[in-house]
Amino acid sequence: MTDEADGRWIVETVTEAQGFRTALAASGPVTTVEGVHDLVLFDNAAFGRVMVLDGAIQLTTADEFIYHEAMAHVGLLAHGDVRRVLIIGGGDGGIAREVLRHPCVEAVTLVEIDRAVIDLAAAHLPQVSAGAFDDPRLAIVIEDGARFVSRTEARFDAVIVDSPDPIGPGAALFGRDFYQCCSGLLADGGVMITQSGMPFLNQDWFARHASDLAAVFPARRFFLTTVPTYTGGPMAHGFATHDPAVFSVSEEALAARLAAAGFAPFYWTPEVHRAAFALPGYIARLVGDGRAAAA
Amino acid sequence: MTDEADGRWIVETVTEAQGFRTALAASGPVTTVEGVHDLVLFDNAAFGRVMVLDGAIQLTTADEFIYHEAMAHVGLLAHGDVRRVLIIGGGDGGIAREVLRHPCVEAVTLVEIDRAVIDLAAAHLPQVSAGAFDDPRLAIVIEDGARFVSRTEARFDAVIVDSPDPIGPGAALFGRDFYQCCSGLLADGGVMITQSGMPFLNQDWFARHASDLAAVFPARRFFLTTVPTYTGGPMAHGFATHDPAVFSVSEEALAARLAAAGFAPFYWTPEVHRAAFALPGYIARLVGDGRAAAA
Repeated sequence: MTDEADGRWIVETVTEAQGFRTALAASGPVTTVEGVHDLVLFDNAAFGRVMVLDGAIQLTTADEFIYHEAMAHVGLLAHGDVRRVLIIGGGDGGIAREVLRHPCVEAVTLVEIDRAVIDLAAAHLPQVSAGAFDDPRLAIVIEDGARFVSRTEARFDAVIVDSPDPIGPGAALFGRDFYQCCSGLLADGGVMITQSGMPFLNQDWFARHASDLAAVFPARRFFLTTVPTYTGGPMAHGFATHDPAVFSVSEEALAARLAAAGFAPFYWTPEVHRAAFALPGYIARLVGDGRAAAA
Repeated sequence: MTDEADGRWIVETVTEAQGFRTALAASGPVTTVEGVHDLVLFDNAAFGRVMVLDGAIQLTTADEFIYHEAMAHVGLLAHGDVRRVLIIGGGDGGIAREVLRHPCVEAVTLVEIDRAVIDLAAAHLPQVSAGAFDDPRLAIVIEDGARFVSRTEARFDAVIVDSPDPIGPGAALFGRDFYQCCSGLLADGGVMITQSGMPFLNQDWFARHASDLAAVFPARRFFLTTVPTYTGGPMAHGFATHDPAVFSVSEEALAARLAAAGFAPFYWTPEVHRAAFALPGYIARLVGDGRAAAA
């Protein structure tokens, strides 16, 4: 992972087959923790503390707010009264932190496959969870997320799937079987939010993913974020539900819900919420009829 | 520029001080042309033909449509009847190609400081200009853009500033003196569009840039695009005018104007046009009152 020619640069191969890499320079010591996951931590002048997990930039403290706010606030504010939340993955605690900002949230279940991820993030990146792991509303379950959704009898107003890339162990958190289980967990009006990868770099995969979501959910759309260290274009997020009314909440209503929640996001605004669903032509055509059906 | 450890990888140092690099692998031969500019050309599996100019990824044939459509169509379709266009820079011909898709455009003046950029792009990347250099509506002027705008007596409905990064020779295409000249070139209802860099990586610079625009133009806003190979977050584009009515054109009117123009963009849609102006909180706060004043 470390560039042989200059140990200061930590290189992420975004995609080997496509020949695309990102590199961040360490401004100080590089900490490597080997175990179930290979974790690398270092500081960078632009992005703050950087966590690289299994060779992929997982988060940086300077830009994680974009991803975590989008994964939490778009679904919760579109719904408007989420009380029970399931987070699949999310062991760094960033999504839980944002979800718990909503006073209407009564219970969060965080299902992480590997306790070590939670422990390492809590030890080395406490500013990401920012107290979420101590919130009495949060329960942690150490279990494979795909297994959890296939066996639980609990129901949720929001299911948030903070999956890794859809290759390797993360693959079980994509696909129709998994979505079928998630669909069954949703309470009336419930919403599912997914990390849906980088459409520009993975156009064929993204089109299949969109049709997998469309096969399970009667209403589903995608929204986009741009996270500086998730290079390769905008990141897509799936938003799936049985109740398409969540897609037509006005900006005024969203602003009123945020005001009632009483916190100040750093990324999310009502205009950004609405704007995120506007897909550039080259992405819209990959979604096909799924977009039209959900519009 | 080439990675010593592996000649296949062409490395761009996005920012040395901040420790951020992007690398693209060459799938075949790498052509280097040294001259006024150092030009490197190669093919990449994900991005097609890549042009690196003076160490910065200038464009790739797979994603240049995003930048070029945004720079051309947002201003022209918001205005609705642009006849005379000035392009500062743009020697690769990509913006000219998109501008010339609009049948209402009668005359385009392209001012490029270096004839070699036009010749090299035309020779090695003919698909970018795609015939624009042969269009009888296009006139090429080889001159420093800052000098041209200070001396010309012509007037334009749209001025599009396709500047390089605001360091080195590109600096003259930013700043109040330059904008004052551009402002004076605008016909009634005219619009100026700028490449305004990467707000996430250059927050202080971007805030100063926004106040420079605000000092000259009574109405100005920013819109965002995400171009995969312009790594480091969304790219900002300035949109400045004396007539704020261009900011409130409805999506329906934009769609009607596109239909009348009779071409099919690959990136731009009426929803994307509107959505691009929604600034995430962390960018909106850099723009300050300029955003509120222009809303």
